[in-house]
Amino acid sequence: MSRRLAVALVHHPVLDKDGGIVTSALTNLDVHDLARSARTYGCSDYFVVHPIPVQRELAAKIVGHWTDGSSARRIPDRKNALALVRPVPSLAAAREALGGGGPVETWVTAARDVGAPLAWDVAGARLRGDGRPVLLVFGTGWGLAPEVLEAADVVLPPIRGASDFNHLSVRAACAIILDRLVGDGDASG
Amino acid sequence: MSRRLAVALVHHPVLDKDGGIVTSALTNLDVHDLARSARTYGCSDYFVVHPIPVQRELAAKIVGHWTDGSSARRIPDRKNALALVRPVPSLAAAREALGGGGPVETWVTAARDVGAPLAWDVAGARLRGDGRPVLLVFGTGWGLAPEVLEAADVVLPPIRGASDFNHLSVRAACAIILDRLVGDGDASG
Repeated sequence: MSRRLAVALVHHPVLDKDGGIVTSALTNLDVHDLARSARTYGCSDYFVVHPIPVQRELAAKIVGHWTDGSSARRIPDRKNALALVRPVPSLAAAREALGGGGPVETWVTAARDVGAPLAWDVAGARLRGDGRPVLLVFGTGWGLAPEVLEAADVVLPPIRGASDFNHLSVRAACAIILDRLVGDGDASG
Repeated sequence: MSRRLAVALVHHPVLDKDGGIVTSALTNLDVHDLARSARTYGCSDYFVVHPIPVQRELAAKIVGHWTDGSSARRIPDRKNALALVRPVPSLAAAREALGGGGPVETWVTAARDVGAPLAWDVAGARLRGDGRPVLLVFGTGWGLAPEVLEAADVVLPPIRGASDFNHLSVRAACAIILDRLVGDGDASG
């Protein structure tokens, strides 16, 4: 992979189950799982996007516990993952931090169809080429608000499994999407 | 997919960080996330393997809350996933339940190399063929005990991302492995 790739997990604006725009609460395992997946797949940063300062402080406290606190000594591997976490107030702040003020490409994925998606193999090839840093954006709750999806530069296809059921957790969806984009896939064995 | 496929999450015997054999505690999000991934990828069952009766009762209580309780009405989709959960005391009990007394193939995956693995594409093709039901076994803690790995019929390769870091959560690993085995992968777009 030659383009810089980062993950963002958005807590606002996201949808609730009735389609309203809400702010979701931070989930401890989202911080851990997405950090571990991001680290495994070579991402440079994992932006935890939350507009509420005390929720960003909570994210920073979780990270500190595993990078400087007692858990850092107990499970050193986790430190390497959680060191990627950057609490930021908005997607704009994440883009600014990732691009250092320069342009960034925003990629989104949605559980449902939201416009013409790029095929997985094409998207993977684009990441291996040259270009702007890519911010891969995931939503909590019932998914990213339409304004985030509409502002994206690239839309990835919905994940289809082997059924008509499509309600993966964001922890599972992020892992699968990173694997499809930059994993060793069938080449392994 | 024409072979019956089920997932098992083992809480004993698993390793702790020092390589000792331990029994891990049930984690609520493991019940949810693996059920949602199993349902998405067409698995018939998700066996939560725990030797301690009160931990199996806790798993059953979580499931009941989402299949019959107030949350079943609030988020009906989750019911379809959690309905796959079967708390059982041992892997032997899971195999017995899956095979109905007949033979079952046990597949394991490990974060590290544990013998000659089957390539992902070969494993996927075997699932699409005819044969015995397949039980895909995951470990909590620091992974499955050697006795479980050694007794397996098939070993899948470790997941390699785009780095030397390989400490995915079991929620992420299960999602990625189901996607590699039965997902639509690059065919989508």
